[in-house]
Amino acid sequence: MQRNELIYAASGRKEADLVLKNASVLNVFSDRFEYADVAVSDGRIAGVGAPGSYHGHKEEDCSGKYIVPGFVDSHIHIESTMVTPVEFTKAALPAGTTALIADPHEIVNVLGATAMYWLLDQAAGLPADVFYMLPSCVPSTPFETSGAVFTAAEMEEFWNHPHVLGLGEVMSYTDVIDGAPEVLAKINAAKKAGKHVDGHAPGLSGMPLMAYAAAGIETEHECSSWEEAKEKAEAGFHILVREGSAAKNLEAIVNGMVAESYPSERFMFCTDDKHLSDLYELGHIGWNIKKAISLGLDPVKAYKMASYNAARAYGLCSKGIGAVAAGYNADLVVLNDRDTADIYRVYKNGIPAEAAVSSAQPVHIPEKFLNTVKFDDVNTESIGLKISDPDGASDVIGMRENSLLTDHLREPVPVRDGYFVPDSVYNKLCVVERHGHNGNIAVCPIKGYGIRGGAVATTVAHDSHNVIAAGDNDADLVLAINTLKETGGGYVLTGGGKVLGTLPLRLAGLMSTYSGAETAAAISGIEEMARNMGIPDGISPFISLSFMALPVIPSLRLTDMGLFDVDKFKLI
Amino acid sequence: MQRNELIYAASGRKEADLVLKNASVLNVFSDRFEYADVAVSDGRIAGVGAPGSYHGHKEEDCSGKYIVPGFVDSHIHIESTMVTPVEFTKAALPAGTTALIADPHEIVNVLGATAMYWLLDQAAGLPADVFYMLPSCVPSTPFETSGAVFTAAEMEEFWNHPHVLGLGEVMSYTDVIDGAPEVLAKINAAKKAGKHVDGHAPGLSGMPLMAYAAAGIETEHECSSWEEAKEKAEAGFHILVREGSAAKNLEAIVNGMVAESYPSERFMFCTDDKHLSDLYELGHIGWNIKKAISLGLDPVKAYKMASYNAARAYGLCSKGIGAVAAGYNADLVVLNDRDTADIYRVYKNGIPAEAAVSSAQPVHIPEKFLNTVKFDDVNTESIGLKISDPDGASDVIGMRENSLLTDHLREPVPVRDGYFVPDSVYNKLCVVERHGHNGNIAVCPIKGYGIRGGAVATTVAHDSHNVIAAGDNDADLVLAINTLKETGGGYVLTGGGKVLGTLPLRLAGLMSTYSGAETAAAISGIEEMARNMGIPDGISPFISLSFMALPVIPSLRLTDMGLFDVDKFKLI
Repeated sequence: MQRNELIYAASGRKEADLVLKNASVLNVFSDRFEYADVAVSDGRIAGVGAPGSYHGHKEEDCSGKYIVPGFVDSHIHIESTMVTPVEFTKAALPAGTTALIADPHEIVNVLGATAMYWLLDQAAGLPADVFYMLPSCVPSTPFETSGAVFTAAEMEEFWNHPHVLGLGEVMSYTDVIDGAPEVLAKINAAKKAGKHVDGHAPGLSGMPLMAYAAAGIETEHECSSWEEAKEKAEAGFHILVREGSAAKNLEAIVNGMVAESYPSERFMFCTDDKHLSDLYELGHIGWNIKKAISLGLDPVKAYKMASYNAARAYGLCSKGIGAVAAGYNADLVVLNDRDTADIYRVYKNGIPAEAAVSSAQPVHIPEKFLNTVKFDDVNTESIGLKISDPDGASDVIGMRENSLLTDHLREPVPVRDGYFVPDSVYNKLCVVERHGHNGNIAVCPIKGYGIRGGAVATTVAHDSHNVIAAGDNDADLVLAINTLKETGGGYVLTGGGKVLGTLPLRLAGLMSTYSGAETAAAISGIEEMARNMGIPDGISPFISLSFMALPVIPSLRLTDMGLFDVDKFKLI
Repeated sequence: MQRNELIYAASGRKEADLVLKNASVLNVFSDRFEYADVAVSDGRIAGVGAPGSYHGHKEEDCSGKYIVPGFVDSHIHIESTMVTPVEFTKAALPAGTTALIADPHEIVNVLGATAMYWLLDQAAGLPADVFYMLPSCVPSTPFETSGAVFTAAEMEEFWNHPHVLGLGEVMSYTDVIDGAPEVLAKINAAKKAGKHVDGHAPGLSGMPLMAYAAAGIETEHECSSWEEAKEKAEAGFHILVREGSAAKNLEAIVNGMVAESYPSERFMFCTDDKHLSDLYELGHIGWNIKKAISLGLDPVKAYKMASYNAARAYGLCSKGIGAVAAGYNADLVVLNDRDTADIYRVYKNGIPAEAAVSSAQPVHIPEKFLNTVKFDDVNTESIGLKISDPDGASDVIGMRENSLLTDHLREPVPVRDGYFVPDSVYNKLCVVERHGHNGNIAVCPIKGYGIRGGAVATTVAHDSHNVIAAGDNDADLVLAINTLKETGGGYVLTGGGKVLGTLPLRLAGLMSTYSGAETAAAISGIEEMARNMGIPDGISPFISLSFMALPVIPSLRLTDMGLFDVDKFKLI
């Protein structure tokens, strides 16, 4: 960007490259839409002026349209979309998202700092701006085997990278409250570098919440009720209102904000995890906006949550993000309709989204990133679960529909010859270490998943991304798990002793090497097949399963080391 | 600060150092006062909880009191208080100001980068937090001789200092709009370092204002009307509502905010220039708060403008400034009364202001900073002004009462033997280069100052701080000017051939080496004496005079290089 060229265009000494004329433009500083022209030069906004004030090499009449700042997803795991950053931004940009704040803790759990370098090398050339938070919890706990460890010392290399905004969600909130040195070292390093620190502390309240705030944690995206969001907001946390494919907190929070006319300046939107198919169908952050407005939120507040509020919270205004105003990036969403966030056109740095997408370059993927699934074949013996209780009682993970929380059940399960025999009520859950470190295998019963006549296996299993599999019979389980080695990771569905479908996710066992559209279609196909095997509506066949190994969400989980009681924070 | 000790105090595992109990505490996130206890540990706020939730080594009952975050002066020239930073913060802290953002362009005009090092060396140990903006315009124009030049290259040393927040007020707005390389280099360097850029563009409007914004300027403290403030706010500038001893813009701006229920998030308070005597008498930023509330501004908004809004705009929240919340610095103002900002007690990092002030250490002043007044003695010949016009007409500076603007007059003046002879209507104004560079002397008639039977001379003369003097006879002028060499700079008043009074300002010729109280008393004494010599009420004997050499305020000024036509921006 030539600053003096921009200045000349702003003062009218030089013609602008592009002028969007006669639109209703959101001014995030006055909280009003104003009838104005927006002049663009050298990828930035030169000026916003009364209609007719600017002339451009190209002029577009936007009468009847609205112009708002490009949307920001303030917390997303791109890996969960199962495509590469370039493919994801190609999908998100036309949906209005011009900037993302991503926490790459999935791929870093598999590949470590190497993945961080790879991501940052691409960051400047993507269709949308992608900023990163350095994953703080790799591995998420000491009670699982991840592919890599990402230490405070390794982070030092990255703090000053222009695409690194801070430390990613500090999920180990009990460690924080206990003052554990390793996590405090990471927080202090982020602070010393002048960076932000994201939180993740579902349900934390009262004095422990104060301790979490006192530690320097600044944001929270894990609020599932208005009361929780309000308490956390008042403790000083920026609230990221999450509406993704799995966790949907928007309605609860926005209803509270509307009911109490609550100050919205420190609230913003995120998706956390959102599937590509949902993005194609419903939109991305635009969906959050639309839903918030439909719940009664002032559209000005909704659009600011989707842009300016996030930019301010993460220090992105100084990078030109968050407003339609002179000097800001020409990241613009032109709307047909304001209240439904109906998008007419999107500009990134003054370039129409279509052009930005079509000129995006594919990225090189190192060979070692494509070979990350390493374990010895399992068999019915190695996944056997001995039940020692005389009444056949066992700890059982109880899945909940539409929730990531699980119940810690203790119930009698089907037993034969002292071993658990899965059925369609009590499926068998297996976790197999797949990074080539120790070959751990752990098994338990799971209730609520409900697959019949088959099994599902995947290398996507938060956050260590070992193999996780569930099925109602051992043969299909064994086949599903072992097939993952052939596909290089991904999704496998088996039934009746046959492989019914696969979705290869060769990049770290997490992401597809295919395009967004191809990947989304493949995902839908295999999910549809799995869904037909008895899995209830409120459970996502693969995504919900992928959280059953995550030992930081209450109450009971299975890692490669065994059953983990999250409430007591120890292995059983 | 031991982060884990703070965390333990927050969670209640450890007793707090201090608990302020039963107060009405401003929550800047919810925009409400809430009945709560504030626990302090290790200089920070450990937690804010329901009454009774925290226990402390020391506990203070604050029933009936209010607690708000420490006040921030978002733009001040400490040199204009005529005391050192330590003396100024000793005065400002008990008035509730726990943080200041200072632009040291007076002392840097005299001493250059050396002064910047000296200031930053002290910054961490002062009673209040002092952050600096690097002066952007030293000298303010090429049409004067300053003691030093502060270049973009020299600034590089300072960007990463933790007490440097950015680039100081970019007063050369015409250069900015013209895209002048030197000023753009400074702005770009600040941006590259992730720092802030302050503006100063009185009256700028329309497309030139867009150009000034497009250049990356972020704040403005030069709004004298609501219309001006509103236009600048909507162009994206943070608005610093200024209420100092000279410029008073608060009433105009706050009246507009109240009338339009305008969003206040990007508005904050500053004093720019405030005399110590006013601070002792009226308070500091607390005065701005009180006045704003009296004009109808919601107290929550007023206190946020005085703290949180400024902290957010300058990135100080991450340094623990701006809120009464866990993890923030225990910078607290306890109020007897909310609407009058009547202060009961102030805490800085959990320590009562009195203790913080009394333990403040005097700073070492390098010898060279005390010897900055260097010129050869003047005499009646060297300050003679030849009048070549046959009718005795001359360019005359016309002073205005209660304004920094001057009129460019052309009038017949008293002449004898071809030389101007001052009298009580047409005083003689002299500017004498005093940095030892070239010995320039410039002289002109000045109308409206009106001193009778004597002369005033001072080394405080914005922004180059040469000697400026005015008198109705040459003998007293010569004596006043030459006496400044003996006092090492400061104020001198002469009459009837005698020195009537002096105020030594030995530090750079700008600041006293005495305490705040002593200096304030001395200033009042000499001003009173000067006032009795005929200077009208609307003219401050020394302060008003000190602006007569500033070549960036219309219309006519006198620098050491001669008469300067500000409107045409050239020497006459």
